[in-house]
Amino acid sequence: MAKWFEDAGKNSDIVLSTRIRFARNLKGIPYPKKMTAEDAKRVIALVEAALEEMNYTFTKYDMQKLSPNEKERLVEERYISPDFASSKIPSCAYISDDNNVSIMVNEEDHIRIQCIYAGLEDKKTYDLISKIDTYLSEKLDYAIHEKYGHLTSCLTNVGTGMRISFMMHLPAIVMFKASEGIFSAISKLGLTVRGMYGEGTKSAGHLFQISNQVTLGKDENEIINDITHVVEGVIAKEKELRQELLNQKGLVLEDKIMRSFGLLKNARIMQSKEMMNLLSDLRLGLSLGITQNISLKDITRLMIMASRAHISSSETSDAPFERDVERAKLIRNTL
Amino acid sequence: MAKWFEDAGKNSDIVLSTRIRFARNLKGIPYPKKMTAEDAKRVIALVEAALEEMNYTFTKYDMQKLSPNEKERLVEERYISPDFASSKIPSCAYISDDNNVSIMVNEEDHIRIQCIYAGLEDKKTYDLISKIDTYLSEKLDYAIHEKYGHLTSCLTNVGTGMRISFMMHLPAIVMFKASEGIFSAISKLGLTVRGMYGEGTKSAGHLFQISNQVTLGKDENEIINDITHVVEGVIAKEKELRQELLNQKGLVLEDKIMRSFGLLKNARIMQSKEMMNLLSDLRLGLSLGITQNISLKDITRLMIMASRAHISSSETSDAPFERDVERAKLIRNTL
Repeated sequence: MAKWFEDAGKNSDIVLSTRIRFARNLKGIPYPKKMTAEDAKRVIALVEAALEEMNYTFTKYDMQKLSPNEKERLVEERYISPDFASSKIPSCAYISDDNNVSIMVNEEDHIRIQCIYAGLEDKKTYDLISKIDTYLSEKLDYAIHEKYGHLTSCLTNVGTGMRISFMMHLPAIVMFKASEGIFSAISKLGLTVRGMYGEGTKSAGHLFQISNQVTLGKDENEIINDITHVVEGVIAKEKELRQELLNQKGLVLEDKIMRSFGLLKNARIMQSKEMMNLLSDLRLGLSLGITQNISLKDITRLMIMASRAHISSSETSDAPFERDVERAKLIRNTL
Repeated sequence: MAKWFEDAGKNSDIVLSTRIRFARNLKGIPYPKKMTAEDAKRVIALVEAALEEMNYTFTKYDMQKLSPNEKERLVEERYISPDFASSKIPSCAYISDDNNVSIMVNEEDHIRIQCIYAGLEDKKTYDLISKIDTYLSEKLDYAIHEKYGHLTSCLTNVGTGMRISFMMHLPAIVMFKASEGIFSAISKLGLTVRGMYGEGTKSAGHLFQISNQVTLGKDENEIINDITHVVEGVIAKEKELRQELLNQKGLVLEDKIMRSFGLLKNARIMQSKEMMNLLSDLRLGLSLGITQNISLKDITRLMIMASRAHISSSETSDAPFERDVERAKLIRNTL
C-alpha cells in the first residue's frame, strides 16, 4: 500500500501529513538510556511476541543489521527518528505492511508507536494508533502511574505519552513575513513549530511541523481537538494569504512558479535544498491553479525519493556530486 | 527575402553577421553637421534619382515621418545607426527589398551605404557593396581627394571610407577570462571591439563587434583580408575554448545551458538583458550539441524580435512591465 508520501488526504495542499506517536514503557525494565543489551533484547522479544499474535502484519528492521543508508532511508521516510538510527543498543523497528504504523523498540522509550497518514487526518490517525496501543496494552505490562499516566524516559512525555504533529506547507505565510507572529502565538498555546525532520532541524521548502508540547493534564482527545483547531486556523490563514498573493502579485507569482518548474524540468545537477525550494513553488502553483503538470502526491513523493539516502541507494556512487546528478535525473523523469 | 537576423551563413555558430559600410559625400555640398535643410533635401533628391534608375529595388524611410518606435526598430535591426534615428535635418534611409543593403542619406556623411549578411561573408558582402558603390559613383559626384581618397565628415573615415564589422558570439572566450588579452591584442592591430550596437554600447549576451579602425593607407581588399584573418583566429580560439569548456565542465556546462533553456521556456516576465544572457547559453549549447530545441537562426531572430521597439510595436502597450511580459510570451512561443 501507498506510503504517506505517496498519498494525498484532506487539505493535502497545505497539510502533508498527520502523525501521532505514543511513548510507552514496560514495568520493571530500565529505560533504554540505562538498560543493558540483555534488557534491550528482552523488550524486543516481548514486543515481537505481542505483534506476532496481532491481526496486522509488520516487517521487522533490526537496527544492528541495517546499513547506514538503509537506516537513513527510514529516517527520510519518517518511520524512525534520527536518534534511533544511531542507537547503540539492540533495537528494532516494525513497520506495518500497509505503511501506516511504525513501532520503534528501544528508542528513548521502550516502545514508540507511530501512525502517519497523508493530509489532515487527526481522527483516522488517532483511531488507528489507539487500536494498536489498546492491543499492545493487553499483551504487555505498560508502566503506568495511577495519577500521572504513562511513565516515560523524558519528563516532557509523561501523561498521555502522545505527540501529534502536522507537517504543513506554509509558503504564503512565509512570503508575507507572517510566520514569526503566527509561530509565536502558536507556542503560547503550548505547541511547537519545527523543521521537517523534528527537533533541531531547519525548515526547508516552507515546510513546518506543528506539534503539541504538553502531554500531561489533558486527555488525548482534548490535546488533539485543541491542536487541530489551531492547525485549521493556520490552514485558513495560509489559504487567505495564498489568494492575496495571487491577487497582489499575479503574473509575478506565475513567473516565479513557472521558472521553478523550468529549472526542475531541465537542470542536470541539483542540490537538495534548491529542490525543496523549487518544489515548494510548484506545490503552491498547483494549489493556485498555475501549474498542472504534476500532482500533490508526486511532489511529496519526489521530496522523499530525491533525499540523500534514497538517491544514493538507487545508484552505486555516494559522492555528493553524483547524488545531485541522480536527483536532477529523478526530478526530470517525474515531471 | 530573409533579413540577416533571420538567416544563417558560414560560421554562424560564432559569427552572427558581416557588415560593411562605405561613407560617401557629394562635392560642393556641406557635410550634414553644417548643412541647411535645403542642402539636405538636395542630397536626398540626388540619391533618390540615382537609386530610381538602378536595377535594384529599395524602400524609402523618411526619418522625419517615422515614429520613434519605427526608427528604433530599424536601429535594432541594424539598418540605421542610433544617431541617424535622432537626426534633426531631412534624412532618409533606403533599404533594399532583399534586405541586404541599407543606405542612410544625411547621417554623419551624405551617404552611408551598408551591406549586411548572416555569418562570415566578407567576400559576398564586399562584392555587393562594391556593386552599389560603383553604380552610385557613376551617377553622383563623389567628393574624392586625389591623394587621400574619399573625403568624409570625420577624419577617421577618410580614405576608403570603409568600415567592416563582424558580430561575434564569444562565450567561451569570456568564460575563460581570455577576452581582455585577446581584445587588447586585436586593438594593437588597428581593430576595435565594441558591444552589439556599435560605439559606446556594452556587450550583452557575449556578443562583440570586431571592426577596422584604419581606413587610410590600405586598400579595401587589404583591410578586409587583414581583419578576416584576425576574425578567423578568434573563431579558432573560441572553438578551441568551447571544446575545452565541454571537456572540463561537461555536466556543469550542460546543467547551466539546460537551466537557461528551462527559464526561457517557462518565464512569464523577462527583461532584455536576462534574455540575451540566456540565449547566449542556448547558442553555445546548440553549437556543442547540448540543445537541439532551436536553430541558430531562430535564436538570432528572437534576439532582435524581442528587443525593445519590436516588442512594443507588436502590442499596444509600451510600459516596461508589459514589454517584459510580451517578450517572455514571444520566447515561449518560439521555443
